[in-house]
Amino acid sequence: MATIPYRTYLSEAEMPKYWYNVRADMKEQHDPFIHPGTMQPAKREDLLPVFCEELVNQELNETDRTIEIPEEVRDFYRTYRPAPLVRAYNLEKELGTPAKIYYKFEGNNTSGSHKLNSAVAQVYYAKQQGIKSLTTETGAGQWGTALSMAAAYFKIPLTVYMVKISSQQKPYRKAIIETFGANLIASPSDTTEAGRRILAATPDTGGSLGCAISEAVEKAVTTPDCRYVLGSVLDQVLLHQSIIGCETKAALDLLGEQPDIMIGCAGGGSNLGGFVAEYMGQRIQGKNNIRFIAVEPASCPSLTRGKYAYDFCDTGKMTPLAKMYTLGSGFMPSPIHAGGLRYHGMAPILSKLYHDGYLEATSVTQTGVFEAAQLFSRVEQILPAPESAHAIRTAIDEALKCKESGEQKTIVFNLTGTGYFDMAAYQQYTEGKMTDYIPTDEDLEQGFASLREIPVNEGLV
Amino acid sequence: MATIPYRTYLSEAEMPKYWYNVRADMKEQHDPFIHPGTMQPAKREDLLPVFCEELVNQELNETDRTIEIPEEVRDFYRTYRPAPLVRAYNLEKELGTPAKIYYKFEGNNTSGSHKLNSAVAQVYYAKQQGIKSLTTETGAGQWGTALSMAAAYFKIPLTVYMVKISSQQKPYRKAIIETFGANLIASPSDTTEAGRRILAATPDTGGSLGCAISEAVEKAVTTPDCRYVLGSVLDQVLLHQSIIGCETKAALDLLGEQPDIMIGCAGGGSNLGGFVAEYMGQRIQGKNNIRFIAVEPASCPSLTRGKYAYDFCDTGKMTPLAKMYTLGSGFMPSPIHAGGLRYHGMAPILSKLYHDGYLEATSVTQTGVFEAAQLFSRVEQILPAPESAHAIRTAIDEALKCKESGEQKTIVFNLTGTGYFDMAAYQQYTEGKMTDYIPTDEDLEQGFASLREIPVNEGLV
Repeated sequence: MATIPYRTYLSEAEMPKYWYNVRADMKEQHDPFIHPGTMQPAKREDLLPVFCEELVNQELNETDRTIEIPEEVRDFYRTYRPAPLVRAYNLEKELGTPAKIYYKFEGNNTSGSHKLNSAVAQVYYAKQQGIKSLTTETGAGQWGTALSMAAAYFKIPLTVYMVKISSQQKPYRKAIIETFGANLIASPSDTTEAGRRILAATPDTGGSLGCAISEAVEKAVTTPDCRYVLGSVLDQVLLHQSIIGCETKAALDLLGEQPDIMIGCAGGGSNLGGFVAEYMGQRIQGKNNIRFIAVEPASCPSLTRGKYAYDFCDTGKMTPLAKMYTLGSGFMPSPIHAGGLRYHGMAPILSKLYHDGYLEATSVTQTGVFEAAQLFSRVEQILPAPESAHAIRTAIDEALKCKESGEQKTIVFNLTGTGYFDMAAYQQYTEGKMTDYIPTDEDLEQGFASLREIPVNEGLV
Repeated sequence: MATIPYRTYLSEAEMPKYWYNVRADMKEQHDPFIHPGTMQPAKREDLLPVFCEELVNQELNETDRTIEIPEEVRDFYRTYRPAPLVRAYNLEKELGTPAKIYYKFEGNNTSGSHKLNSAVAQVYYAKQQGIKSLTTETGAGQWGTALSMAAAYFKIPLTVYMVKISSQQKPYRKAIIETFGANLIASPSDTTEAGRRILAATPDTGGSLGCAISEAVEKAVTTPDCRYVLGSVLDQVLLHQSIIGCETKAALDLLGEQPDIMIGCAGGGSNLGGFVAEYMGQRIQGKNNIRFIAVEPASCPSLTRGKYAYDFCDTGKMTPLAKMYTLGSGFMPSPIHAGGLRYHGMAPILSKLYHDGYLEATSVTQTGVFEAAQLFSRVEQILPAPESAHAIRTAIDEALKCKESGEQKTIVFNLTGTGYFDMAAYQQYTEGKMTDYIPTDEDLEQGFASLREIPVNEGLV
């Protein structure tokens, strides 16, 4: 038996008590949000009607390197954490690589992904503030599941606007959200002005994430003591997700290991931002020389082929604008199976780190991702979510480079979730029916056009 | 923070190195298998063409209390074990009970259940013997998934006969089994004599477990260097599943806890038999006074309403006969959602222990089970399989009795798996469309009639 165990679990006493706020380490901050009405930087007061107060404070916090995780949130974390850090002995053997491969497994909970880490924090702060109900939207359903679990635990009513076509295509996601007691509404609906407007114009529409966001935000601001919560992109979400990176570092320190390469998939950026936070802070301060790699789908390449510009966070153009790498809120990504990565933009923190050269990015094709997922599942006995398998693909590629060069690098990636609700995609792959889609420059141009309509981008894109 | 953690994980060094063979502790052995051709006790040689040699040895081993887990099997166990022992603080609080509730969570792996524990052992011994391929059958799909994972790991070809109607109703189970590389055949098929015979007589049949077993066994005995493997009922399976109980005991010993009541769901008996093995051995020797409770569905009550008699293990009447509590191999259980508990018989070891008064049994209704499952999921953040939720129902009932009496009992139950592939059932429950089914005495009489046709049962039933 090897000295380093296959799975390393921190004890409860070793679990992190603080989130890590990488903004405190950044030499330059990302540009501020822009209010969509005034096209001026958004003020704290602009955010308070939509988000809970303490979450707004976290959103704007550039100075505190660590923020204490409330006791009640840590109590909840203990129901499904610590997440194991796994040494991928079988994958290493299968590849014949001298590299050491580790992965943090964040799919070890009923929501099936890391989304729960931020869901519980956001619901907790809402409860503390005396908020009486919450709204959110969900597309693929991972965020809706996680939030419904957190809302059930803290006994706070939750309305989830689920993209209508998704609620029809994924009835089991709907069922799990309702099992946790949330009120699920297929969007567009007649419960909001925005929904009624869209239904009147296009009665047969299957809805969109943009529309669902519009409905959830409208519901929140028009209902007394109600707030809206969001599962990615925002600084506060990356802060909560830093529990992933803090646990990873604590476990690697126990094992006496230091990563050479850290890899995560990137849609809105929530898992990657949290996974790398602490090590990234050290890197910025010159204390390590780790390569951080964001992996995105070739079909939705916001970092690798997008523009660094101000854009709406939603396709409905209701939210504040963020400076980020984006394909344009008008970009329509192809229906790939990694629904969680089909987002036109990228978290402002990660966008800034990428822009400043601290973060690398690569894109991979869908079939390459499922090839990696299948290999991984057969040797490591975990069925990864398609999103997570993007990181596996690149981890394998880096390990194979080590095989060629003979270098014994330490590769650490984040395995964000499981694929139990993605079997249709696996089926398509095993039956040889999966295809790849890479947008042409002309395809991208359509999305970029929407950026030029935004006044603050004048001369930029 | 409480002294006892929410989740207790053994370290790899603390993980059991031996399976526990409760037969060595039993004062009387269960009656031997009967050969279906001769109606005489089956000999070792009768079993060798069907099962791997070392597994036959384990099947017949009445004397060795512990059997070493091979290093290669322990290597595999380390990819998904140790399974945590969880103190159900939130459930206790929700119920307001003075009882201490613990559960062993065996759903923490891609197969979604404890089935993997025996799958890996059986595939390992086949590989050791130089067997070139394996066959099995699957109904609900948990066993087929677990075995396909083990077969992928040891790189041994596997053919899974899946009940045709199940393979149509559960395409995602099919997809996951194929992702792991197994050859999945909907049964009845034209690949066997038995299948062709059934297809000729009833071309439109959806198949049955009995038919799938017949096909898998036929394929094994007519293919060179091929063997058949089975996921429940047999002594060897209960032996492998004792890893559950050994880990549970090791963790409880670390915490300084001793169970008063141990609870498991019971279909064929594989999880319960393994879960209680070590503590049961002590009980038989007078070293503890634990209550062991088997929980079965009211719709398929083999222990609580069945007969103790010789019966075929399959509905196709091809297998050896076992002395067990049974509803008769001709009993057709109603289509409840806990497919893993829809079995007419019960493991001979558990049947004997029940007959001798060491094991209690209770039956619960489907809606009661889902009520417990929903409550549990909301406070403990794990979505249980319907099978597993049978144990939760009874654990809650026992905890509520403690609330009434004021007793602080220690209740430990086995949470065998997760419900990700059972969302249609949860949906039915949340929509208020679930019904209960309790067979009448007349319903049971039909199954019992088949027992009277078996010569060795003369005068018994």
